Amino acid sequence: MKIPSRHALLLIDVINDMAFPESEALLKHALPAAKKIAALRKRLKKAGVPVIYVNDNFGHWQCDFQSQIKRCSSPESPGREVAKLLLPEDDDYFVLKPMHSGFYSTSLDVLLRFLQAETLILAGFAADICVLYTANDAYMRDFALVVPTDCVASEDAKGTRQALDHMKNRLKARVMESRYLHCG
Amino acid sequence: MKIPSRHALLLIDVINDMAFPESEALLKHALPAAKKIAALRKRLKKAGVPVIYVNDNFGHWQCDFQSQIKRCSSPESPGREVAKLLLPEDDDYFVLKPMHSGFYSTSLDVLLRFLQAETLILAGFAADICVLYTANDAYMRDFALVVPTDCVASEDAKGTRQALDHMKNRLKARVMESRYLHCG
Amino acid sequence: MKIPSRHALLLIDVINDMAFPESEALLKHALPAAKKIAALRKRLKKAGVPVIYVNDNFGHWQCDFQSQIKRCSSPESPGREVAKLLLPEDDDYFVLKPMHSGFYSTSLDVLLRFLQAETLILAGFAADICVLYTANDAYMRDFALVVPTDCVASEDAKGTRQALDHMKNRLKARVMESRYLHCG
Amino acid sequence: MKIPSRHALLLIDVINDMAFPESEALLKHALPAAKKIAALRKRLKKAGVPVIYVNDNFGHWQCDFQSQIKRCSSPESPGREVAKLLLPEDDDYFVLKPMHSGFYSTSLDVLLRFLQAETLILAGFAADICVLYTANDAYMRDFALVVPTDCVASEDAKGTRQALDHMKNRLKARVMESRYLHCG
Repeated sequence: MKIPSRHALLLIDVINDMAFPESEALLKHALPAAKKIAALRKRLKKAGVPVIYVNDNFGHWQCDFQSQIKRCSSPESPGREVAKLLLPEDDDYFVLKPMHSGFYSTSLDVLLRFLQAETLILAGFAADICVLYTANDAYMRDFALVVPTDCVASEDAKGTRQALDHMKNRLKARVMESRYLHCG
Repeated sequence: MKIPSRHALLLIDVINDMAFPESEALLKHALPAAKKIAALRKRLKKAGVPVIYVNDNFGHWQCDFQSQIKRCSSPESPGREVAKLLLPEDDDYFVLKPMHSGFYSTSLDVLLRFLQAETLILAGFAADICVLYTANDAYMRDFALVVPTDCVASEDAKGTRQALDHMKNRLKARVMESRYLHCG
Repeated sequence: MKIPSRHALLLIDVINDMAFPESEALLKHALPAAKKIAALRKRLKKAGVPVIYVNDNFGHWQCDFQSQIKRCSSPESPGREVAKLLLPEDDDYFVLKPMHSGFYSTSLDVLLRFLQAETLILAGFAADICVLYTANDAYMRDFALVVPTDCVASEDAKGTRQALDHMKNRLKARVMESRYLHCG
Repeated sequence: MKIPSRHALLLIDVINDMAFPESEALLKHALPAAKKIAALRKRLKKAGVPVIYVNDNFGHWQCDFQSQIKRCSSPESPGREVAKLLLPEDDDYFVLKPMHSGFYSTSLDVLLRFLQAETLILAGFAADICVLYTANDAYMRDFALVVPTDCVASEDAKGTRQALDHMKNRLKARVMESRYLHCG
């Protein structure tokens, strides 16, 4: 699949302390996915695709994104390895979300209009919660969706598979491995 | 008027480079207002009222709030004096808004629900644009409004007066000088 | 001003029982405006511009639009003459709004996207409340605005004038008498 | 489970022409569910729980709810039997939704605030699309959820089961047969 213009890459909850009971299970799948995301993101940026961090504020309402990054990549953070693979660069965009969907109570809608994006490439965690909810909301807003299967992860493979099936069958997402995304 | 619990103080666009043609006119009114806001805010915080910066991102989508603060209080920023009087403290909240109203495409709704706020005290700039739009949207969402007349400012006094009239008559806002707000 | 494609005519709260204390004052200005709206609407429909009723539900959550129309054009309704001049036709669109702005908690956004409208022509009542709030919200969503001065009305002429000034100066609305809108 | 106050029953897409290729499969499960919904709704209304039709407009933007009902219960409508079992009564509420989620671009939020509802009982179709999306959005808005398993249906039993699992595990919904809902 060739990436034309009017795309945006959404990195969902990749800056994440993963400080919750099930994080070990998620990390097992998230770390290899993070490596794939890092590679994909490099290729997409070279092709001019804007990168948007769509990141939970994890209830830290008084922290801005830089503080979240510091916190999540600190030695105590179980999610530090994933975070360090995917640190934002100066020209990346970000949106802090208070809930699961990247569209709920955030500026994502306005930012995507500003960027004139029409197709969203979704990557990040967890495939069956925040990625799925963001995909549902994007679909209702008429965005086309691309989901690279090796760039999303959940606590268990079954959850990821069900979410990918839903996005493919219900949301008309194009679902494929990241290596099939060709950037011009 | 006595401030009970369930209030929140909204500081609207006080961190502002004021780098636009009419900024001189606005600054003339904004600087004295900023001093009043600083005093009010100190009293309200002592009484336990949460402070929320509801601040424009000024189209700087790649900057977080700390970067906006740095930019707006730098020597080149016409708005630096106002910004320096009203720098956020570690326990203050913030919301970056992309447009005029603090409720449009932001997390303000969710944050206010989290804080269990029912009455909003509005301060900041400009009284007849961003303060007014935020007031309109707050009213539609059933918030009670308090607007201290000496803590808002516009480019001209007429604009401020008309906005205050509208908020009082149409939005049932209680409108009075800040010294009449008593904190317990 | 020539009306090209991608316009929509919004009729704001024209189906209205006007059963409130100040309705006599509003009606004095609303009735002549309704006649102008009826003429404008006829011209615009002939030119292919879609007409959208953006109408309050007036707290009658259990009534649909047809019931509102019956209620507002009944002999007991002070607003019956205005309503009867502006009854919807089968091919007109409608949105029931629970609050002042036509965009707050309604499907207007999605309908306008469906109609591919980019410019909104605003008509109806009251110029300084529901028309103004809808204009503010439209502006934040990047719609261009046209406001025919003789097709809006408030309780008093001053309120209308201030609202028109605000829409012209702050929202970049084109403000002119309806006879200057030329439909191809 | 006993139904206290502050509940609302949401009937999702029950007035439905089901004029789509897969409707036969859905109808097979929807008809028995509609009978269960009719019985539950009777019990809940007697207990004072408000009933809200959260119904698609199916792209018929020019039709109001009464017209949708007429259309969907006409002899040509595959969904007529379901619709006739669940016709709204005069004191029922309704919201027309343009997309899958009952919260997206509708007044549902404001209506639920008006009704002071805190817990939503979800019934209708399809369990794995519109019911699920509405559940997701309700959860993000802090509503508690109850889903009677025999009052929802999808095209296939697997879809329903996965959706119920998601709502139970991810959205903390209480999931049980409708006969276990006791109304005081």
